[in-house]
Amino acid sequence: MCALVFTQAVGCSSSSGQLGSWNDSVARNQIVDFVSRVATPGSAAFVPEAERIAVFDNDGCLWAEQPAYFQLLFAMDRVRAMAPSHPERRTEQPYQAVLENDMKALAEGGERALAQLIMASHAGMTSDEFRATAEQWLATARHPSTGRLYTEMVYQPMLELLDYLRDNGFKTYIVSGGGIEFVRAFSEEVYGIPPEQVVGSSLVTEFEIVDGEPVLRRKPEIEFIDDKVGKPVGILSHIGRRPIAAFGNSDGDLQMLQWTAAGDGARFCMLVHHTDAVREFAYDRDSHFGRLDAALDEANARGWTVVDMQNDWKRVFTDLAEN
Amino acid sequence: MCALVFTQAVGCSSSSGQLGSWNDSVARNQIVDFVSRVATPGSAAFVPEAERIAVFDNDGCLWAEQPAYFQLLFAMDRVRAMAPSHPERRTEQPYQAVLENDMKALAEGGERALAQLIMASHAGMTSDEFRATAEQWLATARHPSTGRLYTEMVYQPMLELLDYLRDNGFKTYIVSGGGIEFVRAFSEEVYGIPPEQVVGSSLVTEFEIVDGEPVLRRKPEIEFIDDKVGKPVGILSHIGRRPIAAFGNSDGDLQMLQWTAAGDGARFCMLVHHTDAVREFAYDRDSHFGRLDAALDEANARGWTVVDMQNDWKRVFTDLAEN
Repeated sequence: MCALVFTQAVGCSSSSGQLGSWNDSVARNQIVDFVSRVATPGSAAFVPEAERIAVFDNDGCLWAEQPAYFQLLFAMDRVRAMAPSHPERRTEQPYQAVLENDMKALAEGGERALAQLIMASHAGMTSDEFRATAEQWLATARHPSTGRLYTEMVYQPMLELLDYLRDNGFKTYIVSGGGIEFVRAFSEEVYGIPPEQVVGSSLVTEFEIVDGEPVLRRKPEIEFIDDKVGKPVGILSHIGRRPIAAFGNSDGDLQMLQWTAAGDGARFCMLVHHTDAVREFAYDRDSHFGRLDAALDEANARGWTVVDMQNDWKRVFTDLAEN
Repeated sequence: MCALVFTQAVGCSSSSGQLGSWNDSVARNQIVDFVSRVATPGSAAFVPEAERIAVFDNDGCLWAEQPAYFQLLFAMDRVRAMAPSHPERRTEQPYQAVLENDMKALAEGGERALAQLIMASHAGMTSDEFRATAEQWLATARHPSTGRLYTEMVYQPMLELLDYLRDNGFKTYIVSGGGIEFVRAFSEEVYGIPPEQVVGSSLVTEFEIVDGEPVLRRKPEIEFIDDKVGKPVGILSHIGRRPIAAFGNSDGDLQMLQWTAAGDGARFCMLVHHTDAVREFAYDRDSHFGRLDAALDEANARGWTVVDMQNDWKRVFTDLAEN
């Protein structure tokens, strides 16, 4: 109520009508209030355009992340596709688990098994070859329960939020625990976020001259993990200034939100809480992927905005008709 | 002659008049010709704005680099400033060489000595503290032979070139072997290049909570060297697409130019050749800083543009009157 009154007092921009898939909730009003305060010339909290930096997590914030991070499903599909030329993998973990679709055995392999799958599927080729493979997968592979393309499992309210922020002079960045080149394979087309505004995890990449042609080759060695304490580090490296708004959904985003909140002036921190088992998936503190526990406690303690997907969003996914 | 005729044929943009500090030379005409071809709608070589990425080396390309990289002079000044709290350094190399201004002893220490000086002067503090220290030095320290502020030792023709490219829809980046945070301390004010468009070398940086406040602390460990084979890697990481124009001046820029040249469509690669001992410094194949040898051979072999500072530039440095 207070937020709504204040928003009207400072003059709510008509472009907030763009947030058409958002119910008239506290969360929506807090967004509009913040944007009005920092983007209205003469406002006490006014921020120059160059400093209106907004950072978004990807998995579980802009698109879904269940039953597993989509990039892991991509890695598993790649391992399956490469199986004919790797007969030894039929009896070697974690590949055997993938080939037999044994998610329990895969889970038992832990982080080490996941890293092995990433190396086996994401390294060895050039950056151009990897990009092409990822684009091909995104154009054809289907989500196991919805049957949608993965790029159709993006959240319509978040797409509207990206547009709304950009229309109000914000520069929008993705800061993902996922691989930077994987996210770049669809970020511009799907989110309107160009490659230079994507921050993510990376493999060591080396310059080589092959038959007179320079290439960048991806090595089976992790260079940087853009998650948890890595997110503020990735932000400093790629952006070089502190965001004024940060959007996440899991404990992997906690430090990014803390870093954003600690700056001077008006700040906005938001978590998407997955509360909608019917239209999407309901999970938080016990989830294997996208676990939301300490960050939810901190959001509640510090008054950060928490989006209740079930009640705050009129629709969840983009485009198709079932919402 | 040919370049000039072709430029006129496609219609030379009147804004090329901005290149006022350039003589009417082959180099200038090659620049204008390239920009006209990629930025003129309907041209066979037209490139959409989003792909008009231009990358610039900094040391020796946008500002001077003699008698040593300015960042090294900054590191030496920092070591001198910290001397009172480090009495042991009076008899320990490479610090002793710095404190006694013994450049010969310093040179004998090689790369290892330089790395030690960088660690001693650039690590341990937070990113905010480092930025403030660099800004303070840039605002006050003077070049040993010209007496100018270091930020006044930028090349006026290159500032005009940055403006000319931006006016024609290019996004201009710095891709420097220097430290990314050091360059960011002046890039926006001096070059009009914001922090998110600076790529450079970096130290390992870690997120910490100190007294409840999140900080990013710089560790005495090199994370990435954005030089030679590192430059195309840094470009991929930060920009995520291949530049169509690259500007350098030394062998440290060779791979960046090769990577740029190898893309499809119109490409522009340029070296600044330091030929002016009177107005600046004359050096190339035998220089300790900014050595230009293999890259000059490759430029000549491949027909890249080579700027002869003495003959192609009406003036060298920005602002002051002596040019």
